Amino acid sequence: MNRLELFEQIQKKKSFLCVGLDSDINKIPKHLMGLEDPVFEFNKQIIDATLKYTIAYKPNIAFYESRGAKGWISLEKTINYINDKAPEVFTIADAKRGDIGNTSKMYAQAFFENMDFDAITVAPYMGIDSVSPFLEYKNKWVILLALTSNKGASDFQIPRRDINEALYRFGIRATRSRALYEKVLSNSQAWGDNNQMMYVIGATKAEYFTRVRSIAPKHFLLVPGIGAQGGSLQEVAEYGINNKCGLIVNSSRGIIFASNGEDFAEKASEKAHDIQMEMEVILRKKSLI
Amino acid sequence: MNRLELFEQIQKKKSFLCVGLDSDINKIPKHLMGLEDPVFEFNKQIIDATLKYTIAYKPNIAFYESRGAKGWISLEKTINYINDKAPEVFTIADAKRGDIGNTSKMYAQAFFENMDFDAITVAPYMGIDSVSPFLEYKNKWVILLALTSNKGASDFQIPRRDINEALYRFGIRATRSRALYEKVLSNSQAWGDNNQMMYVIGATKAEYFTRVRSIAPKHFLLVPGIGAQGGSLQEVAEYGINNKCGLIVNSSRGIIFASNGEDFAEKASEKAHDIQMEMEVILRKKSLI
Repeated sequence: MNRLELFEQIQKKKSFLCVGLDSDINKIPKHLMGLEDPVFEFNKQIIDATLKYTIAYKPNIAFYESRGAKGWISLEKTINYINDKAPEVFTIADAKRGDIGNTSKMYAQAFFENMDFDAITVAPYMGIDSVSPFLEYKNKWVILLALTSNKGASDFQIPRRDINEALYRFGIRATRSRALYEKVLSNSQAWGDNNQMMYVIGATKAEYFTRVRSIAPKHFLLVPGIGAQGGSLQEVAEYGINNKCGLIVNSSRGIIFASNGEDFAEKASEKAHDIQMEMEVILRKKSLI
Repeated sequence: MNRLELFEQIQKKKSFLCVGLDSDINKIPKHLMGLEDPVFEFNKQIIDATLKYTIAYKPNIAFYESRGAKGWISLEKTINYINDKAPEVFTIADAKRGDIGNTSKMYAQAFFENMDFDAITVAPYMGIDSVSPFLEYKNKWVILLALTSNKGASDFQIPRRDINEALYRFGIRATRSRALYEKVLSNSQAWGDNNQMMYVIGATKAEYFTRVRSIAPKHFLLVPGIGAQGGSLQEVAEYGINNKCGLIVNSSRGIIFASNGEDFAEKASEKAHDIQMEMEVILRKKSLI
């Protein structure tokens, strides 16, 4: 799936919502726990209930891996279920992998061959050769971490103000030390084009979207942090949207754990529909549908 | 296991070697392929053959994950086998994980609870709250990526010279922009002490060890890149060793795939023994044994 096909999906469903399948077995409704594979059954019902309103699903791999081989089987069944039922839906393995070349190649095999995900989230710390093995797959995407939604994002991704201020004071504009997330956004564009690379930009950092768009105007951005993490959809859309939408906004806990009763799928559907309607208004206002 | 206990192991075995279990099913000797779990059988024989010469084992998780649930079972059997046979040996899940708090917590559960690894490699990009869930476990270690052994390390970890040179030219010494790996080494020391944190420093970057030791004099360093990746044990030891050794040097392919015939375990044992003997000479020269 390329950038334009993704935009077509967005136009068709009037939504740029991704549902995060952070399917924590400890939070799954009790009545499912007697079943053979409660996590898969939960995902299946969530998918059936939200498919109308979402263009993407993003299993968070940690929640499967934490259950060992059993969890891995739930994950395989989930991706196969999505691909069988709705092959047009965009699927993201939220794995945040990245290692030396021969090792990233193995991770690519895990998520792109054994499981047929469309995309994987990758950490940029180790640079080009930790990312390129994923880019060798045609029609598959790397979603590179740039500016994340958590508190620790300010440890390395965003620069310490004092260094830049000292530079400015001495009039060194040309060599302004760029923030790490800016370097990632800018340098990595040489590694692959915008039909196979996106960036993670946290919704809790809405004030940065203007800067992000000045470096990467055309790329799709995967935006986590709406809902439980406190980001604002309106702000993200205001500064982050482009002429092909260019946004996939994720919500996990706010949708999938909207209820922990027997009505969990119904409530998830309502929550997803609420967000979809808000997105439809935004898309119309921006004349994208 | 704390820092001193690790040093005791090093003194006892006269070795600071870690054997990397990058057990690629495509490289495993043919005669094992008919068995029920060839990867586990391979690991078992490698472990039996090298245990005398090594203080640590480091399964590279990608090689297991790439085989799905089956691979996960081989991994679980491998870590259980090591812990049963040699509980004093240090075990490292080379996973390079790292995500927002609630997700890192799940990864910690996977590698520290479900599987009883002593340590996990973690990517620092997302900062403190992506690392701290791993540090909540007593007697477990985080091995944080600082300066890796691959080509892409120069994309973000090492600074572009021109910025620093411009700064120096203007006499701004105090605000010299530090390299990312230096920031990681220095800032992360506030997150946990040197009995639960180590750093990955690639052997292919031996010229940086002096700088690393000026920032982190006491920490253990996990050093990949000896052997197939071309790093020099002598150089690493010269500049990286401290008064508790402070080094765990990994070799993977050079040992485990020394032969792909029926003598693979014997050849692996010989290779590990060769490195152990070289390490023994170094430890004696530095008066550490």
